[in-house]
Amino acid sequence: MSEQGATGARASETELIARYFAPLATEPSTFQLGDDAAYLRPRAGCDLVVTKDMLVAGVHFFPDDPPGAIAKKALRVNLSDLAAKGARPLGYLIGLGLTGDWTEAWLQAFSNGLAQDQETYGITLLGGDTVSSPERLTLSITAFGTVPEGRMVRRGGARAGDLICVTGTIGDAALGLQLRLDAGLTTAVRLTGDQAAFLKNRYLLPQPRCRLASVLGQHASAGMDISDGLVGDLAKMAAVSHVRIDIDIDKVPLSDAAKAACAARPDLLRTALTGGDDYELAIACAPASLSSFVEAGKKAGVAVSVIGSASEGSGLGLAGARGDLADWADRGSFSHF
Amino acid sequence: MSEQGATGARASETELIARYFAPLATEPSTFQLGDDAAYLRPRAGCDLVVTKDMLVAGVHFFPDDPPGAIAKKALRVNLSDLAAKGARPLGYLIGLGLTGDWTEAWLQAFSNGLAQDQETYGITLLGGDTVSSPERLTLSITAFGTVPEGRMVRRGGARAGDLICVTGTIGDAALGLQLRLDAGLTTAVRLTGDQAAFLKNRYLLPQPRCRLASVLGQHASAGMDISDGLVGDLAKMAAVSHVRIDIDIDKVPLSDAAKAACAARPDLLRTALTGGDDYELAIACAPASLSSFVEAGKKAGVAVSVIGSASEGSGLGLAGARGDLADWADRGSFSHF
Repeated sequence: MSEQGATGARASETELIARYFAPLATEPSTFQLGDDAAYLRPRAGCDLVVTKDMLVAGVHFFPDDPPGAIAKKALRVNLSDLAAKGARPLGYLIGLGLTGDWTEAWLQAFSNGLAQDQETYGITLLGGDTVSSPERLTLSITAFGTVPEGRMVRRGGARAGDLICVTGTIGDAALGLQLRLDAGLTTAVRLTGDQAAFLKNRYLLPQPRCRLASVLGQHASAGMDISDGLVGDLAKMAAVSHVRIDIDIDKVPLSDAAKAACAARPDLLRTALTGGDDYELAIACAPASLSSFVEAGKKAGVAVSVIGSASEGSGLGLAGARGDLADWADRGSFSHF
Repeated sequence: MSEQGATGARASETELIARYFAPLATEPSTFQLGDDAAYLRPRAGCDLVVTKDMLVAGVHFFPDDPPGAIAKKALRVNLSDLAAKGARPLGYLIGLGLTGDWTEAWLQAFSNGLAQDQETYGITLLGGDTVSSPERLTLSITAFGTVPEGRMVRRGGARAGDLICVTGTIGDAALGLQLRLDAGLTTAVRLTGDQAAFLKNRYLLPQPRCRLASVLGQHASAGMDISDGLVGDLAKMAAVSHVRIDIDIDKVPLSDAAKAACAARPDLLRTALTGGDDYELAIACAPASLSSFVEAGKKAGVAVSVIGSASEGSGLGLAGARGDLADWADRGSFSHF
């Protein structure tokens, strides 16, 4: 409907793609985005892993976040899914719904953010679509990765006897979001400026654990990324794996900043463990495989912590001295929806 | 940001996916959508063709269109891209940004629309994401198809001496959109109720020419789908193919309804030929291949019409007695952006 198509004196869609996105499409099979589609030819003996996450301004990020950080978050939440599946990232498509007030500077910074992460993660832009989204910036990324044939790590593969591990620290992003939503909270929980900045940055910029993907592919019974809150996500893993998972809350790794916040306000522990946006990995593995994960984590500079185990049965059990555990498991997880 | 995540007493995201979308994911490799990702294993000797189109309520469709038709349009505009690339459709991912007022009935009808088109086009849902999009329903589909290795039909392959052909009739959807935007227009141009309904339906429900995909793969020098207006799209084909394309406006196939509208209001011819949303195919082919396209079209019940030719040079030339041709080519095409 053309009345919403006006872009004034700025770049047309074609110019915009040529200027900000075509330089990101480095593979010949993308025809520099000058075609209706691109093609992919996975190496023989590989499966292509596909995932899609959509992000909406004011729902998944703040509209005034730096454009490069928005770009990176949109990309990284998808790369996190690939890492959890044991997949090596390959490329992505981007759907970009722009509000009418976009500027060339904003788009340049957004495109620079994509370019930096393409370099970091060894991926290329494969194509996409740019449309008008009158009220809110909306991003839809489809990411592609590869795994050896038949070796995609599943969410539903946890077995009785497996250990349940997580990467990094849990809850930082959820606490960082609370700090952004509640301007008085930093002072109320007596965080240092560095601690507050650390937590906010964990919300702003996920760190997908791509460097652990190959060890997951070799040694994990099950994997998923923790995006909707540790408690709810492990409940999902238990359900689709047809096992019971028990976790010891006291073993869940917290950053110093998160520990400080939870010490000052113990109710924040629930926020940390159910809040979402961690983009760490939850892994089920046989006890004999644990050392492979710990070693790979050391190489990648990421702690791998055992927080529980799987057994015959169903559901998620929570134990530990920290906090009031009543009804956590029933509460379900944070939902972006 | 959880304040926008409330869904009241309705289905949670997990329930919503289980109820309306998991039944559409018929391949084992999708794990009934109970995983972070799905995998694809193209047949040996095949390339995977990927395309992504995003649709926003009030920009690409009317928010009060029947939900099944919205679903089908979102899917079909992507299938149209695959057809233009000579690709056989395989499956799709869907990103669904739902406004807060969605109902179970709406979602059921939307899901039914997808199911019907999955049957029609022989495809399956592979995965996706559901998020809150507070103001506008937003759909982002990534579609996958296959072509024999190295055989994706390109937009940039037109050669001097090629004929330029189109499928079906041009301009119906653009006129149908005008009829919807301007309630008095049907009477003003003296269309019958059937004619008006035909044009409106051509806007509502594209007919991707998937049945011509294989003949494109075998015989087309270049192909693209006509989504942004015939004139602008052929200008793009000429540019990326490094040829000049001349078309005879009088040879552009119009439906009886479009002819009637343009007879009553000659300026509507420009709307028809620059307006967009045709989702017909533009094909460049050697003259010796024309009969293959005409034959394949007959089998599929779709006319294939020669409207011009390609030659050495650059740009798009328009000729013909119909209408005032001044500055059409410069006007560029309709933009959804």
